Amino acid sequence: MALPNPSPGRDYEVRCETPEFTCVCPMTGQPDFATVTISYVPDASIVELKSLKLYLWSFRDEGTFHEAVTNTILDDLVDAIAPRRMTVRTDWLVRGGIHTVVEASHPPA
Amino acid sequence: MALPNPSPGRDYEVRCETPEFTCVCPMTGQPDFATVTISYVPDASIVELKSLKLYLWSFRDEGTFHEAVTNTILDDLVDAIAPRRMTVRTDWLVRGGIHTVVEASHPPA
Amino acid sequence: MALPNPSPGRDYEVRCETPEFTCVCPMTGQPDFATVTISYVPDASIVELKSLKLYLWSFRDEGTFHEAVTNTILDDLVDAIAPRRMTVRTDWLVRGGIHTVVEASHPPA
Amino acid sequence: MALPNPSPGRDYEVRCETPEFTCVCPMTGQPDFATVTISYVPDASIVELKSLKLYLWSFRDEGTFHEAVTNTILDDLVDAIAPRRMTVRTDWLVRGGIHTVVEASHPPA
Amino acid sequence: MALPNPSPGRDYEVRCETPEFTCVCPMTGQPDFATVTISYVPDASIVELKSLKLYLWSFRDEGTFHEAVTNTILDDLVDAIAPRRMTVRTDWLVRGGIHTVVEASHPPA
Amino acid sequence: MALPNPSPGRDYEVRCETPEFTCVCPMTGQPDFATVTISYVPDASIVELKSLKLYLWSFRDEGTFHEAVTNTILDDLVDAIAPRRMTVRTDWLVRGGIHTVVEASHPPA
Amino acid sequence: MALPNPSPGRDYEVRCETPEFTCVCPMTGQPDFATVTISYVPDASIVELKSLKLYLWSFRDEGTFHEAVTNTILDDLVDAIAPRRMTVRTDWLVRGGIHTVVEASHPPA
Amino acid sequence: MALPNPSPGRDYEVRCETPEFTCVCPMTGQPDFATVTISYVPDASIVELKSLKLYLWSFRDEGTFHEAVTNTILDDLVDAIAPRRMTVRTDWLVRGGIHTVVEASHPPA
Amino acid sequence: MALPNPSPGRDYEVRCETPEFTCVCPMTGQPDFATVTISYVPDASIVELKSLKLYLWSFRDEGTFHEAVTNTILDDLVDAIAPRRMTVRTDWLVRGGIHTVVEASHPPA
Amino acid sequence: MALPNPSPGRDYEVRCETPEFTCVCPMTGQPDFATVTISYVPDASIVELKSLKLYLWSFRDEGTFHEAVTNTILDDLVDAIAPRRMTVRTDWLVRGGIHTVVEASHPPA
Repeated sequence: MALPNPSPGRDYEVRCETPEFTCVCPMTGQPDFATVTISYVPDASIVELKSLKLYLWSFRDEGTFHEAVTNTILDDLVDAIAPRRMTVRTDWLVRGGIHTVVEASHPPA
Repeated sequence: MALPNPSPGRDYEVRCETPEFTCVCPMTGQPDFATVTISYVPDASIVELKSLKLYLWSFRDEGTFHEAVTNTILDDLVDAIAPRRMTVRTDWLVRGGIHTVVEASHPPA
Repeated sequence: MALPNPSPGRDYEVRCETPEFTCVCPMTGQPDFATVTISYVPDASIVELKSLKLYLWSFRDEGTFHEAVTNTILDDLVDAIAPRRMTVRTDWLVRGGIHTVVEASHPPA
Repeated sequence: MALPNPSPGRDYEVRCETPEFTCVCPMTGQPDFATVTISYVPDASIVELKSLKLYLWSFRDEGTFHEAVTNTILDDLVDAIAPRRMTVRTDWLVRGGIHTVVEASHPPA
Repeated sequence: MALPNPSPGRDYEVRCETPEFTCVCPMTGQPDFATVTISYVPDASIVELKSLKLYLWSFRDEGTFHEAVTNTILDDLVDAIAPRRMTVRTDWLVRGGIHTVVEASHPPA
Repeated sequence: MALPNPSPGRDYEVRCETPEFTCVCPMTGQPDFATVTISYVPDASIVELKSLKLYLWSFRDEGTFHEAVTNTILDDLVDAIAPRRMTVRTDWLVRGGIHTVVEASHPPA
Repeated sequence: MALPNPSPGRDYEVRCETPEFTCVCPMTGQPDFATVTISYVPDASIVELKSLKLYLWSFRDEGTFHEAVTNTILDDLVDAIAPRRMTVRTDWLVRGGIHTVVEASHPPA
Repeated sequence: MALPNPSPGRDYEVRCETPEFTCVCPMTGQPDFATVTISYVPDASIVELKSLKLYLWSFRDEGTFHEAVTNTILDDLVDAIAPRRMTVRTDWLVRGGIHTVVEASHPPA
Repeated sequence: MALPNPSPGRDYEVRCETPEFTCVCPMTGQPDFATVTISYVPDASIVELKSLKLYLWSFRDEGTFHEAVTNTILDDLVDAIAPRRMTVRTDWLVRGGIHTVVEASHPPA
Repeated sequence: MALPNPSPGRDYEVRCETPEFTCVCPMTGQPDFATVTISYVPDASIVELKSLKLYLWSFRDEGTFHEAVTNTILDDLVDAIAPRRMTVRTDWLVRGGIHTVVEASHPPA
């Protein structure tokens, strides 16, 4: 998922956002939908967009809780590109009248 | 109301928001309506959404002031899941031409 | 104008906002209109909404400048409920092509 | 341009904003248009609105660059009312496909 | 690209924003589109708007990645006017369902 | 619920809108929430606002479907004030990921 | 309130809108607030803005219902300038949780 | 998918909207996402919301073009509830820089 | 101000809008500001944009009422390009608390 | 550019919108930018999105006026898919302080 950072000498921020994330609720088996936002300061590598799209797509049939999948995406992307800082935020469509947002950072604030 | 936190090793934030809160004014007996937003950093537990819905629903026939109910919700949720940090915010529909918002945090800022 | 604070052991914020404020320009005698926002952290007392409405209503025939009335409202409310912190903001409809906002805090920042 | 500050014992903020500013480009001779926002903490004096309107109006036939006129307005108003702090912001309509905003403060941040 | 700063004795901010940036994807050869925002505190020089327009226009047929071109614009403008501080932000139209924003500053935060 | 129309010689429109409507789902027993909008051209009578508020409040513990309650409100108000024309629209908070709006008119279009 | 129409040979529309209307509720004695919009096609006369402002101001201490005052304004302006067509719309701040709009036209549609 | 219409004597409109529709592109095999809006005037039957949710969910793994699936949904719902009028609108997330909306009605306008 | 219409065989619409219009109030001598929108269906000619800009600029020092200048612009443009249909709309910044819009068409509706 | 219409027996509408259109001003040689919206009712064929993207892309180095290119796109698409009805709308970024929109239909309204 990694490309070489074209400007590793400088801290700068990249933010990728997509409303095209869907997975499955592990309790009801029903689809869930979220907008995923990934912000990071790259070190040696940046995220390659096509691989990111395929990676997010891989959750389509996965049963997973909102809190768990947010932390999983953060862990996987930190493993893949070892950024200086990264935040993953998931913003979920309403379930049971409740709108949920989860946001995790590495390293934690 | 608690589920185990799938990622207890990391500070991360969860925000739940619902426009479906109603209670009763203790002075006039008339219904009041609010949007409730709960933001927290979980420790060992996260809030289970269905229980949260039922909990908020339990105020439907309660007579309570805006300031009191906001602090009550905060106290109850802190008791239930012992979060590292939590903020409860209630945003009330207009009464007497005045729009009121109450926001309480644990531990206080 | 004061009610006992139901949760005096905790710093929390209350915000009351109303677009229904009108007074009179002391230079031209013409009506002025503002949205008034009052934010505070209560100590022993909270503001009672009906009295607040009547208090703000009492300026309807008063001739007063934007800057003066904002500080007067802050002084009166600080006298009435002795909050830990309070900010009063007035946001005025256009006069002479100019939109004016005045914001005063106690204690000053 | 100055009126006595009705509440000199307290730091508070006044913001005046008008979309009615126009001057002339010194290079092309064409009109330029901006929204001007003036925020300040008064000391002994506040800005009188009618004089402010006339002052801003006086640039209507002046040839001046965006950066220069912003600093000139700040200098003139600081001279006129000696505020504790003041920021002048000019937000210009598009020229050459580019939208420009200039913001200067006294004392500088 | 530089004009003399009319007010070098004071730190103040200039922001230039244009939705008219296009270049070419180096992998697919397809056009990419972005809004470019340049914010800076000038030292001896300010950016001349017409040269800025021509400079941004020069990328129209260039094949370049989002992260690289953002850093290149920052490097070129820092070379051209040696600002006290500068931030370049590029906000790209959706590719592969993903909306990307890149933001780089000099000196880094 | 009726007051005499102060201007019966002319067709004119009145629109009343409130986000404070709640009833109960007859299948699940859970609360439902809607914004209700009533538009009408009065004949001999207009709707008195306080009675309207109490009338809408009376559904708080009623189990009723979205389509049924919309038509019931229309029928009741037509009975109460015999308007020349009336439309009732209910706009419901999300259930099962679906946002529903129902709109009925008398006489039908 | 009338000025001669500078272009009587052509049907054209003028719309005047102000958020600065206030009167008094005849039942409770409390102030009410509305945005008033007046649209018309002039015949021999147009409305002079300063007189319109003074006319609307004259309701400040009047006790009047929403529906009545809307029709009164329409009647008075039709008397004053005999327009080819005119619509008066009043949009009132929330009372009892209900937002009301009244719209009357001459001649009726 | 049908429930009996509680008010068959009157033409009225129901609108159901969900942002939770996803299917698969038959050319690339990649997921597509749309907001689906269904508006109709019921005859003997109304749409039951839970069945509608399951029906829309059934497209999750289907390969289908935007235009085809819109007409299919319309055909299926017309078959299911025989409405007096129905419109189906699908509003798709961006593909290839292009945002597509398809809208079909029965009977055609 | 005219260029030949590149597609005279077809009725089509052109709309030009600019927030950069200013003239002078003939009663007070103060500047007025408006957004001008010109929509038309061309016949043999279309409006050339640079001439239009210069034409609108020519009102900068003219004393003229809102209603008069709107009709003058319509008359001048109809003379210049003889369109099949044209509407001129002027939307003025607030004066005396009142926001005014004037709209005239040729031929009248 | 054509695909077979999957539902030729019914009139329905397709709308494609892209903010990614750029061409060149034939007078100044500078780039112009527009959002292009194409709405149509298909007959035997629908527009294939990838070809549409390439077709719009082909104007990147073309010198053409706003009015001309809008009519050209309409002519080319009518030739390509012979729709029952089609409208092309181009909405251009500001030039000379003026925002221009052109809209042409086949057959003309």
